[in-house]
Amino acid sequence: MILSQIIILYCLIFIIIKNYKELFLVYLVGAGPGDIELFTLKAVNILKKADVILYDALVNEEFTQFCKKDSLKINVGKRKGHHIKNQDEINELLIKYAKQKDVVVRLKGGTPFVFGRGYEEVKALKKIGITPIIISGVSSTTSVPESFMIPSIDRSFSDSYRTITGHDLEIFNEIVTSYHKRENLIIMMGAYKAKQIVECLLKKGFPSSTPIAYLSKGTTKDEKCLLFTLEEVSKKDDDFFEELKELTPIITYVGETIKASY
Amino acid sequence: MILSQIIILYCLIFIIIKNYKELFLVYLVGAGPGDIELFTLKAVNILKKADVILYDALVNEEFTQFCKKDSLKINVGKRKGHHIKNQDEINELLIKYAKQKDVVVRLKGGTPFVFGRGYEEVKALKKIGITPIIISGVSSTTSVPESFMIPSIDRSFSDSYRTITGHDLEIFNEIVTSYHKRENLIIMMGAYKAKQIVECLLKKGFPSSTPIAYLSKGTTKDEKCLLFTLEEVSKKDDDFFEELKELTPIITYVGETIKASY
Repeated sequence: MILSQIIILYCLIFIIIKNYKELFLVYLVGAGPGDIELFTLKAVNILKKADVILYDALVNEEFTQFCKKDSLKINVGKRKGHHIKNQDEINELLIKYAKQKDVVVRLKGGTPFVFGRGYEEVKALKKIGITPIIISGVSSTTSVPESFMIPSIDRSFSDSYRTITGHDLEIFNEIVTSYHKRENLIIMMGAYKAKQIVECLLKKGFPSSTPIAYLSKGTTKDEKCLLFTLEEVSKKDDDFFEELKELTPIITYVGETIKASY
Repeated sequence: MILSQIIILYCLIFIIIKNYKELFLVYLVGAGPGDIELFTLKAVNILKKADVILYDALVNEEFTQFCKKDSLKINVGKRKGHHIKNQDEINELLIKYAKQKDVVVRLKGGTPFVFGRGYEEVKALKKIGITPIIISGVSSTTSVPESFMIPSIDRSFSDSYRTITGHDLEIFNEIVTSYHKRENLIIMMGAYKAKQIVECLLKKGFPSSTPIAYLSKGTTKDEKCLLFTLEEVSKKDDDFFEELKELTPIITYVGETIKASY
């Protein structure tokens, strides 16, 4: 008699724990660089189950075709310099919906842990006892050069590439200490400081003939590649740099490997 | 009468050119890091049409579920140090099937242009007038750390990561000139030179307390993470380094950002 009661109690606890876990299912999902067909199968399968989707501005909105009709889709991204939500607000929303709903998806451009503050969201969720599941996406850092037929690595030219933010010039200046012809730079969020970045690289001893490509809106129908040498960019006027800002998101690729694609 | 003949001739030329183009359709497709669900929708759609698939050893063989039943699937990869085909042979096969078949897929681990010699295949095809279409995949360089919950970039720790081959120590030594605490190293193909790489980093001024993670077989069921400091690895005996070789493919991640995941 006591044994059967123990078994029933055990089953009840099991059911409660299982439901509790399901209640707290949060996924950080990479949406890739823009092309809707570069979503992974895993991303699509999770979107099919999602009750709430918090998505960035750079995510291709066609993702809604994969979602349940009654799912809640919230754009938490930035557009034209205007933040819809700041990071704290996004973290709060994640926590709010994680507590309320079964399956919450945080859909991020590229892949969750390459820039984009994905790990800050993990930390916020961990604080309330939720460990989100990470679904990697196609990172724009490598796929955008690919979409313009520029390899990150080609054995004739390169053995290394450095992926770095161009947002903070001080740290950029500290990290990029010297030039090596077999290493490329992939500079993210560098469009607003394009002039200073080129000046910095020339000071560091990058040859003035080094190719530089501004890769705008890669993998989308509006994609555009502007190709120069560092010297050419250093002689551009203010209008050029203002026009560059209009072309964001831009990946700035610097290195001899660009010549592979000529 | 002459006009109608011109129109018919024009249509015939159009049909011939169109078929000629289709005859030469070659895709370089990224298969991602290992997990079959990390294939992109685009990769799956192209595999459905493929007549011939040349695939690497590290590609998850479950991809065959997406293929036509009568498609030809050829493993051109390396396994346990034994090359099935060398790069020249792979290029020759690509050209041979591109000339014979409608749709040829070259299926590569990760994404086509991040190591893996994808661009050499492009060059070989371009020589005979074929420009292959590149389908980006989920790169193991970023997704394998993600699968172990280690970010490539977390704002508390990092602004940059360097992706570099560990295969050629001389070039590694030349490119990695100094240490910066806000930059991580993602070292590919470094397992066979693990001891020398750690010695090199300590000589360059990397603090002995810097975390180092050996990420083995990421995103597969056999995945494994070995976590140390540089000092700890520098004191390991030969057995350790021999055992490490057994765990390939390994990505070696060096940097303070590993601490984010503690």
